[in-house]
Amino acid sequence: MMQTPLLLTQMIERAEKYFPKKEIVSRTESGINRFTYKQWGERTRRLASSLSKLGVEEGDKVGTLAWNHHRHLEAYFAIPCSGAVLHTINIRLSPQHIVYIINHAKDQVLLIDPDIVPLIEKVKDQIPTVKAFIVMTDGELPETTLEPVYHYESLLEEGDPSFQFRNDIDENAPAGMCYTSATTGNPKGVIYSHRGIVLHAMALGLADTTGVSERDVALPVVPMFHVNAWGLPFAAVWFGSKQVLPGPYFTPGLLAGLMQDEKVTISAGVPTIWLGLLNELEQNEYDLSSLRSVLCGGSAAPKGMIRSFEEKFGIPFMHAYGMTETSPLAVIAASKSYHDDLSAEEKLDLKAKQGILVPGLDMKIVGKDGEVAWDGIEMGELALRGPWIASEYYEDERTEDAFRDGWLYTGDVVTIDEEGYIKIVDRTKDLIKSGGEWISSVDIENALMAHEHIFEAAVVAVPHEEWQERPIACVVLKESGKGSVTKEEIMDFLKPQFAKWWLPDEILFLDEIPKTSVGKFLKRALRDQVQDQMKQI
Amino acid sequence: MMQTPLLLTQMIERAEKYFPKKEIVSRTESGINRFTYKQWGERTRRLASSLSKLGVEEGDKVGTLAWNHHRHLEAYFAIPCSGAVLHTINIRLSPQHIVYIINHAKDQVLLIDPDIVPLIEKVKDQIPTVKAFIVMTDGELPETTLEPVYHYESLLEEGDPSFQFRNDIDENAPAGMCYTSATTGNPKGVIYSHRGIVLHAMALGLADTTGVSERDVALPVVPMFHVNAWGLPFAAVWFGSKQVLPGPYFTPGLLAGLMQDEKVTISAGVPTIWLGLLNELEQNEYDLSSLRSVLCGGSAAPKGMIRSFEEKFGIPFMHAYGMTETSPLAVIAASKSYHDDLSAEEKLDLKAKQGILVPGLDMKIVGKDGEVAWDGIEMGELALRGPWIASEYYEDERTEDAFRDGWLYTGDVVTIDEEGYIKIVDRTKDLIKSGGEWISSVDIENALMAHEHIFEAAVVAVPHEEWQERPIACVVLKESGKGSVTKEEIMDFLKPQFAKWWLPDEILFLDEIPKTSVGKFLKRALRDQVQDQMKQI
Repeated sequence: MMQTPLLLTQMIERAEKYFPKKEIVSRTESGINRFTYKQWGERTRRLASSLSKLGVEEGDKVGTLAWNHHRHLEAYFAIPCSGAVLHTINIRLSPQHIVYIINHAKDQVLLIDPDIVPLIEKVKDQIPTVKAFIVMTDGELPETTLEPVYHYESLLEEGDPSFQFRNDIDENAPAGMCYTSATTGNPKGVIYSHRGIVLHAMALGLADTTGVSERDVALPVVPMFHVNAWGLPFAAVWFGSKQVLPGPYFTPGLLAGLMQDEKVTISAGVPTIWLGLLNELEQNEYDLSSLRSVLCGGSAAPKGMIRSFEEKFGIPFMHAYGMTETSPLAVIAASKSYHDDLSAEEKLDLKAKQGILVPGLDMKIVGKDGEVAWDGIEMGELALRGPWIASEYYEDERTEDAFRDGWLYTGDVVTIDEEGYIKIVDRTKDLIKSGGEWISSVDIENALMAHEHIFEAAVVAVPHEEWQERPIACVVLKESGKGSVTKEEIMDFLKPQFAKWWLPDEILFLDEIPKTSVGKFLKRALRDQVQDQMKQI
Repeated sequence: MMQTPLLLTQMIERAEKYFPKKEIVSRTESGINRFTYKQWGERTRRLASSLSKLGVEEGDKVGTLAWNHHRHLEAYFAIPCSGAVLHTINIRLSPQHIVYIINHAKDQVLLIDPDIVPLIEKVKDQIPTVKAFIVMTDGELPETTLEPVYHYESLLEEGDPSFQFRNDIDENAPAGMCYTSATTGNPKGVIYSHRGIVLHAMALGLADTTGVSERDVALPVVPMFHVNAWGLPFAAVWFGSKQVLPGPYFTPGLLAGLMQDEKVTISAGVPTIWLGLLNELEQNEYDLSSLRSVLCGGSAAPKGMIRSFEEKFGIPFMHAYGMTETSPLAVIAASKSYHDDLSAEEKLDLKAKQGILVPGLDMKIVGKDGEVAWDGIEMGELALRGPWIASEYYEDERTEDAFRDGWLYTGDVVTIDEEGYIKIVDRTKDLIKSGGEWISSVDIENALMAHEHIFEAAVVAVPHEEWQERPIACVVLKESGKGSVTKEEIMDFLKPQFAKWWLPDEILFLDEIPKTSVGKFLKRALRDQVQDQMKQI
């Protein structure tokens, strides 16, 4: 067989040749813009030629600080298809972390949305590798202290619309990179190779996964600065799907409107987004009958939310699982043909699991006594292997924590049922190890949060002389329960649902649970707080 | 990203783990057999362990002479997943050619269907590399002069059902091979690598191509000794599709029955097969409502046949194009979303073309003045490049005829329309070069064969002093036309359909057109015959 490399170049060339009429709808600060793939292809080539003139060379990192729009999509191809590395920077990180990763990646050029310019101005003296700033604006170049600064559209005007992309890159060469937050310390970088991105995009096109196709209208709500918007823009370009990019500061109403007007068929985002959309659909009337799949990842979607999408609004909902280190698609809740015979409730239970392994990857689940049984009960850490799974953190000593013996240890504790469907039960570090057995903090939390008077609940481990660790429940009551609901009542509520040794040793009432910037429980802080409080009991 | 290789091992392991209950239906000489993927996986591992005990080592060629059945599917994985090479031998070749390719490939072991045993007995003294013969029979080992000979099922009984397949093979290592007939001389061998087969199977799973899925029931009519049954068995195992293998000596009635009883969703074969099935459907009643796609390749399907499938029987028909050298899927007649607006007749015209390039490959069409225009008119030779396109003929000097500058020159002359859809108009060697322009023999033949009194027609070139070459039409009349239809009448029939310089210089009436063993026009012989006849005119 020919040794032709798997490169992003073939994706954009296919879109230009076979789907020149298909459309990219992009919402920017000035409103809706429409481009054909032909126009977009020429703009992308102009950008590549301009970056080359600015001195960007093979292997150089080019950072983007941008929302989901056509210019970001141009950067997605202009940079890697000319041999450089697309470094998408999470604009929601703290300024210190942004400075860290720009320096760690040694970004040469930054492509910046106008609303992010002030953030970069504040740190411009701390990022010496950056030799040029390019502002991706519809209007004039804003007044700025950044230097040297370029106007994106002016660069494009001077660019060459028939710039030749490279077909001779090694398929294992880096095409992109993305940093993921760490629980402690600086973010960790993951490098995506051309080969990894191409194979991952192919996996997204499989009928048995997300089946991204020319017939789709794809709206990635997940940010393009977050794991390549789950690879959806790459697959959509390759297969010639119409794309709808919602730009900055979208609201649920705006998303629902775009979905209706542009006849969106597939969208992808985190549970918070879908909760917002559900709310919007309950308040206002939209025709979303074109939607064939709402992909949900990032964290587990509650079964009630899935039920509302499917039963109330007739919108197919699909759980998926992955992480920055896995490109990200690794597991998807696609049903098997014989699952058609399940009851509606059993189907919902299946959809509430993360799903089965995507073709092309390998998996093992390591419990305390080796690989776990496929019984939906035994818990173990999910480990993954395959051509779109990272092999290391970029120049980072923490590589050895997660990458061992050729496997990525995800840090996610899961069960797997008889049919191979995975359900995430906890993070390894939040798991409670009691008397040699494992207790899932998430399971107890979910049970607590189903109580009518409980607003939120978090369960953490405290050290225990005899049992090693024991669970403590932290509960925030709703107004309806304050002053009336007792510890005993909550314990009685839990008892029929769990084995006796799973029950928390103590229930603490708190005013709120400490949270991270993206709204996840900050269990590390909570553990410290609980240990202090327990000493006083 | 991890450097995990793309190997067939991951396909069978996925089927065993995730789809152990799914079924393989296999028709052998004794009737219908049913196996689950779990059972089939164990049998495949037993076979691999037995081959290993027989001395088969990494890189060794193991030949199969077999129809489409479960044992052949076991060989499809047992051989490559233990590092050896699956050499599928076309049982319809002449004994001399079979001897040539066994010797050329240096096959160590042959797996043989009982009805092929007599053929191999006749040549057993001419194939010295073969150290063992294994007969794949349901019953007792037949009386045979083959030596040493083994009974397939007895070998399996002694085999190890938990034999470990290899995960450490180089993805570029050979996994399979297949010989393709040449117009002159011996067949030419093509080697398939693990990487090529895996990527090709992934392409078969794309929603935009054939979308092979767990939900499918796949029936490959195309023989497993012919380009891996177009890769369908590999994709079906990987994605966990139910498979229906029709075994030896199937009739259209038997195929229609299997399709109905097993609820087949996707099938693949050459036009002759589908003509036979159409005939059967017109004569007897079947419920084939489960069929979502009939894939047709090998040669062009007439538009009338496509119309009958689609309009009369409501069965979606899909043209595809490929060859032994292309694994084979290269081009597929999938429509674009905006083609939904075409009229029924325009849709049929689109379906009668071979289609657009499959994602992952690269293509160019080289005419007499460089790459052709995308106008549906200009003709050029189709050249292909990509990771499942062969780079050479196995140890064969004829490599340089077809493989040049990193491209496979297919020898097929095509046009390409504005939308990128390819239509095959001729083989390069059958094209008529007249006055510096090209004339498609196939176009004139199709026009002639649409005449009510013409049974068949072939058009060939004869040398011409002034114009270099000129077309001569050879026509076989139906009984209805014999003695009444004249040359002038036929010429008048052609005139409105073609430019003047396309019209044949002469029309010869023949009793029959010479044909190859598979029913294609033998144009080389016909050209000689016509040149002789023309001298007499």
